[in-house]
Amino acid sequence: MMLAIAGGSGSGKTTVANRLSERLKEHCTLLSMDSYYVDLPPGINPGDFNFDAPTAFDFGLLIKDLIELKAGRPIRMPSYSFITYRREPGLFTEVKPNPIVIVEGILVLYDPELRKIFDFSIYVETQDDERLLRRIERDMVERQRSIESIIRQYRRFVAPAYRSFVEPQKHYADIILPSGGYNEPGLEIIYNALVQKMR
Amino acid sequence: MMLAIAGGSGSGKTTVANRLSERLKEHCTLLSMDSYYVDLPPGINPGDFNFDAPTAFDFGLLIKDLIELKAGRPIRMPSYSFITYRREPGLFTEVKPNPIVIVEGILVLYDPELRKIFDFSIYVETQDDERLLRRIERDMVERQRSIESIIRQYRRFVAPAYRSFVEPQKHYADIILPSGGYNEPGLEIIYNALVQKMR
Repeated sequence: MMLAIAGGSGSGKTTVANRLSERLKEHCTLLSMDSYYVDLPPGINPGDFNFDAPTAFDFGLLIKDLIELKAGRPIRMPSYSFITYRREPGLFTEVKPNPIVIVEGILVLYDPELRKIFDFSIYVETQDDERLLRRIERDMVERQRSIESIIRQYRRFVAPAYRSFVEPQKHYADIILPSGGYNEPGLEIIYNALVQKMR
Repeated sequence: MMLAIAGGSGSGKTTVANRLSERLKEHCTLLSMDSYYVDLPPGINPGDFNFDAPTAFDFGLLIKDLIELKAGRPIRMPSYSFITYRREPGLFTEVKPNPIVIVEGILVLYDPELRKIFDFSIYVETQDDERLLRRIERDMVERQRSIESIIRQYRRFVAPAYRSFVEPQKHYADIILPSGGYNEPGLEIIYNALVQKMR
């Protein structure tokens, strides 16, 4: 069974994916769409590249890999470097198939071919200002970026891409999870549904 | 277990409640908040009464009845007449307790005391124009009302009450169900979660 978890940057979708995956233990494979970023084009400054638009992702390879996993075959997932903004040449992660495969990412429900692969889909919805706060915390603390560069990227790329590409995915989701990550009863509903489906 | 299903008029919450209740059969009691309307105040024209505001409902009695059902005791639910806009004096419906009690209504997540009673809560989200279309269809066909009176009521009461009271309930829901009633995978997730919870 393939489960998609979509939502904006800072919505808590990674937390939701991790929480579910921890509880499902060895029955579950967790994949992040971040591993399927395309290489930063030569001569482009990372600050000028839109990491939030569909053009930033290799949908073809992601679809191909998910079809393999669904058929019960292992894949070699690319290793994307957030330092060079490129795939590490010749470096892969072996990913084994499992009864439940969870794929999380900002645009996992964007592509019509990709949507067809999923059996269940969740959209994690968190208020705009809370998403922005989490992004600022994460980028300043974990990635040591300046507040000016975070604000510039947010205004130029993150917010417009959210309106144009991320938010419309709500209409393709089976379920919308409010306040993702910290919504215990909502997580419980989804976990129970997965367990019941596995029987 | 008590399940709340909230959502705007025409969102499909009644369909969701009926679909779940049909599948859960004899394990389930279904209650509509519509039975808990207060009497139309004397001298007030029904066209001048706001049926979409919290003041239109007897939250006290609904809470009292749900606490009884939760304790495993039957209740005598009032019979509200949509012709006289009042409770039918001395007329009640015997409602038996059951492992699952579903309560649906536009404002079931509005009152803090009422919210405490529910174990799970769903908000059914449907786009504004689709909700309006369904309302027009229902009121013209089933209730033989004129389009002018429907539009007047919608502008004066339904739309403002939706923004002020109904929509904010999203933040109290455990799960948001998009395109309610016709969202098969979403209904499946909720049904499976209920069954799993009953084990």
